[in-house]
Amino acid sequence: MTVQAKTIALVGKYNAAGITDSMTDLARFLDQAGHRVVLEEETARYIQLDNLAAMSVADIGKTADAAIVVGGDGTMLGIARQLAPYNVPLIGINQGRLGFITDIPLDRMIPVISEMLEGKYVSERRSLLQAIVVRDGNQIFSGVAFNDIVVARGAGSGMVELRVEVDGLFMYNQRSDGLIVSTPTGSTAYALSAGGPLLHPSLSGIVMVPIAPHALSNRPIVLPDSSEIVIEIAAGRDISVNFDMQTFASLMHQDRIIVKRSTHTVTFLHPQDWNYYNTLREKLHWNEYPSVEGALN
Amino acid sequence: MTVQAKTIALVGKYNAAGITDSMTDLARFLDQAGHRVVLEEETARYIQLDNLAAMSVADIGKTADAAIVVGGDGTMLGIARQLAPYNVPLIGINQGRLGFITDIPLDRMIPVISEMLEGKYVSERRSLLQAIVVRDGNQIFSGVAFNDIVVARGAGSGMVELRVEVDGLFMYNQRSDGLIVSTPTGSTAYALSAGGPLLHPSLSGIVMVPIAPHALSNRPIVLPDSSEIVIEIAAGRDISVNFDMQTFASLMHQDRIIVKRSTHTVTFLHPQDWNYYNTLREKLHWNEYPSVEGALN
Amino acid sequence: MTVQAKTIALVGKYNAAGITDSMTDLARFLDQAGHRVVLEEETARYIQLDNLAAMSVADIGKTADAAIVVGGDGTMLGIARQLAPYNVPLIGINQGRLGFITDIPLDRMIPVISEMLEGKYVSERRSLLQAIVVRDGNQIFSGVAFNDIVVARGAGSGMVELRVEVDGLFMYNQRSDGLIVSTPTGSTAYALSAGGPLLHPSLSGIVMVPIAPHALSNRPIVLPDSSEIVIEIAAGRDISVNFDMQTFASLMHQDRIIVKRSTHTVTFLHPQDWNYYNTLREKLHWNEYPSVEGALN
Amino acid sequence: MTVQAKTIALVGKYNAAGITDSMTDLARFLDQAGHRVVLEEETARYIQLDNLAAMSVADIGKTADAAIVVGGDGTMLGIARQLAPYNVPLIGINQGRLGFITDIPLDRMIPVISEMLEGKYVSERRSLLQAIVVRDGNQIFSGVAFNDIVVARGAGSGMVELRVEVDGLFMYNQRSDGLIVSTPTGSTAYALSAGGPLLHPSLSGIVMVPIAPHALSNRPIVLPDSSEIVIEIAAGRDISVNFDMQTFASLMHQDRIIVKRSTHTVTFLHPQDWNYYNTLREKLHWNEYPSVEGALN
Repeated sequence: MTVQAKTIALVGKYNAAGITDSMTDLARFLDQAGHRVVLEEETARYIQLDNLAAMSVADIGKTADAAIVVGGDGTMLGIARQLAPYNVPLIGINQGRLGFITDIPLDRMIPVISEMLEGKYVSERRSLLQAIVVRDGNQIFSGVAFNDIVVARGAGSGMVELRVEVDGLFMYNQRSDGLIVSTPTGSTAYALSAGGPLLHPSLSGIVMVPIAPHALSNRPIVLPDSSEIVIEIAAGRDISVNFDMQTFASLMHQDRIIVKRSTHTVTFLHPQDWNYYNTLREKLHWNEYPSVEGALN
Repeated sequence: MTVQAKTIALVGKYNAAGITDSMTDLARFLDQAGHRVVLEEETARYIQLDNLAAMSVADIGKTADAAIVVGGDGTMLGIARQLAPYNVPLIGINQGRLGFITDIPLDRMIPVISEMLEGKYVSERRSLLQAIVVRDGNQIFSGVAFNDIVVARGAGSGMVELRVEVDGLFMYNQRSDGLIVSTPTGSTAYALSAGGPLLHPSLSGIVMVPIAPHALSNRPIVLPDSSEIVIEIAAGRDISVNFDMQTFASLMHQDRIIVKRSTHTVTFLHPQDWNYYNTLREKLHWNEYPSVEGALN
Repeated sequence: MTVQAKTIALVGKYNAAGITDSMTDLARFLDQAGHRVVLEEETARYIQLDNLAAMSVADIGKTADAAIVVGGDGTMLGIARQLAPYNVPLIGINQGRLGFITDIPLDRMIPVISEMLEGKYVSERRSLLQAIVVRDGNQIFSGVAFNDIVVARGAGSGMVELRVEVDGLFMYNQRSDGLIVSTPTGSTAYALSAGGPLLHPSLSGIVMVPIAPHALSNRPIVLPDSSEIVIEIAAGRDISVNFDMQTFASLMHQDRIIVKRSTHTVTFLHPQDWNYYNTLREKLHWNEYPSVEGALN
Repeated sequence: MTVQAKTIALVGKYNAAGITDSMTDLARFLDQAGHRVVLEEETARYIQLDNLAAMSVADIGKTADAAIVVGGDGTMLGIARQLAPYNVPLIGINQGRLGFITDIPLDRMIPVISEMLEGKYVSERRSLLQAIVVRDGNQIFSGVAFNDIVVARGAGSGMVELRVEVDGLFMYNQRSDGLIVSTPTGSTAYALSAGGPLLHPSLSGIVMVPIAPHALSNRPIVLPDSSEIVIEIAAGRDISVNFDMQTFASLMHQDRIIVKRSTHTVTFLHPQDWNYYNTLREKLHWNEYPSVEGALN
């Protein structure tokens, strides 16, 4: 069976020295299978692979048919956000533990990738969030997040008070440690720790999860992902907004963070036998035990 | 200004004696405005309104342009489920406390209804759930729910174990007091008490909320409302399935409850200034306080 | 070194056939070490150990220096409740998984028990709860619980409403699926599933945990264990009270369940290196990972 | 009836200008009743009361028979911490909303205080926490808290990792936004927002509540208040420790925060009809509704 030649970008995690051998193997395998292999520029700084061209993310975006990311969910998060405008499909290989979005184990990557290149994969689209920060009517910052956008107080600074509007309608003034606005992808990350629900990746939803809210009835709320959420700093000190844990600090009173679904999406390719619930079960230690004879003890 | 004559059905809550006067006023007002007014058959059993024809739900479904329900959310729930196949728009009047879906106060109903009949309303569509119970390959029960479908253990019967599949994929074996499958409408009811998130009514989602789950990571999960959920009784005694608190009891091991979105929806008409967040704020005692001078104390 | 001869009772779990060999080994070891070994009466029904006298719980209570329980936490719970009035120290051996109160693995029991008989153990005292049910001024039931006393609704019966008093002071009318009153021991069981906190076994406290309460602010509350809690059935159908999952059903309106700490306690003996936090960490899958170089990734 | 003459200190909240009239009334009433009235030094800075001597907290501690605090719970918190070493009983008057520990309404203060001076009061003792921060074997900070001691991350700084020991036993390495160690008094404050249980004021307990913990099973845990808790900074940046929201910042890796119950306690005097559950019910909006005819709808 012939597989059409493709351009495949390899991306490694920061300080990827420990995975040089694996990436060399992967590059060789892809090369021998007739594909063109390039190495993401940043990755190329700390890892040398023979004869492999380094390429910027922008160029990968324009030319690659797929990007294979070797690392953990954090590595994937970073590159996915950068590649989002180009819609290059992503394949995730984890080094150790199964990730939510890096689902292929390192020691099985060659046969799995081989099959996927033959078309045996499932494709899945994930949404992103974008936000701008507006001060005195002027946009002073903008960012994109794959997991979540978080408005939060500083370490020693008491509660914040946030005034929240959705689609132009006043929702509430919320006193808390902060507010998480999360994609379905992010619902298994920080939002979960703060008491949020899981959101299936194919749900067209965004979840807002308050962090340690003063009012016990300020519960997580899931909105359609067509919603525009405006978070205004009503009170508090030392407040920042984080995009996937990357920070824009020094928010001031009456600053407005305007959040909506990004116009871009990210496509993940998974092995054909992948399914979301398997990952959830393993990551969250859900039980699989069948009870014997229908009896609980 | 001329308002086109409509057929309006009136529905009262069970044992509506206390609201006879109000319904008489309402009927008279509608009659004088040139509309045809009919009284729902069950309501007519315990309340007599002069010269008002009693009509079955089925006939209301076929002939009425709208139904006005006087009571609480429970009354609305019951009639909405019955009228769902006919798509008759519903207007809810509450006797005392603001309801989530009965949002017009009794003492303002005449002017509000008057305006709504002139076209000044907002229309909102809510989804329902349907489920069948399958035993040994045969369907032994079916039902519809506006809030939630709940599989739960009996009073003195320990945990249940439920095997859950979504869209043919195994999710988990869950040990708990039971499992709530809820619409966005139901997300402010029992699902909320059990720790579930709020779901905006226009979200195309269904939330599954475990009740007192043995595994702490068995968190609420929000699924696209295109999902088919199969709950199989894996273990436990004295288990029942409830549709909006109406019970089908005596489930047996290996019985399968198959839940999906109903093909019907329910349309609510609200006064023009209605919005969902106002209702949430009032019902959940969310704060509206603006902080003075940006200072928290 | 001489160990003083003791009378040791052996208790097995229900249907203990699979552990006959283990118990035979244990009995032989104890016999050879010069101790008198007796077999609990119920255990003796389904397991035969050579030359071993069967003895009722009451007689064990009067004559044994310690009881060794082979099974799981459930087995221990049952016998601990029965032996509580006699203050016979208990040693717990688990067959498979580590238990909260059966902490010695089956395959290491001989050396561990051997050491413990030489005085190398830690002793720990656990409190119990007792309750009576009062109807029309008359006590109609009484029971003891090692984990929890639970007042709960039936499967298809909506919420209950419970009127709660503590030490003669009105606390609240609570609408919920039910109310758990738990010892520190029980705080890792049902109370935890329902959202309760962990209570250290040596805390002189009782925790009340509402199950799916209607009011979101009806949070778990920890009371001094000198408190007398009165739970009155204010509304609801098909309500029961459970003592460690053993049921007294058919509660009626205005029945009062009066809960307080039992005058008895139970003493557990643990191996010398036992500590509570090790058990918690293992049972709750708490992480032990030390971060490398102070860096989180 | 003669009331023995006492020395009463008055304490006002920061920027107490708005309550000058009330405090003047109170001072006059106490003076006329034959008591010696003094004004706390800081309070005297922004409020002038005729002929009233200003007195330092230390001198109040040595000479006053009671201190009356007019303000909110925050005001009380501050002065209670300072007066704790002197064991001067405190009476709390709230200006607007009922406080957890300022339970006398401003507009009823004269008759209530009058009765209390006649001996009609209930006395209640509250525990405090103290902690020291140890770096490289040296104590670099110490503080006292009435509500809670909180170790927490900064605004844009990801999770912290804390290594927790209790009474010399390793508990866990916890990844989270931080960890709250709270008294029973503090259990209705920040600890409650973060998911902690309520602790009755007379419970001899301390509760540890993780803030947005990574591991879902890192649940709040209640320890005997004889426990010594050691929190070591294992990883993270920009970490601080807060004593009732007063901050000691710039914690470094391997800094150890050693928390235990303070040797001091605070005594509150309440009106004779005060009870804790009334306050809880009002502050937490618990329901008091009795159901009619035992029926839930």
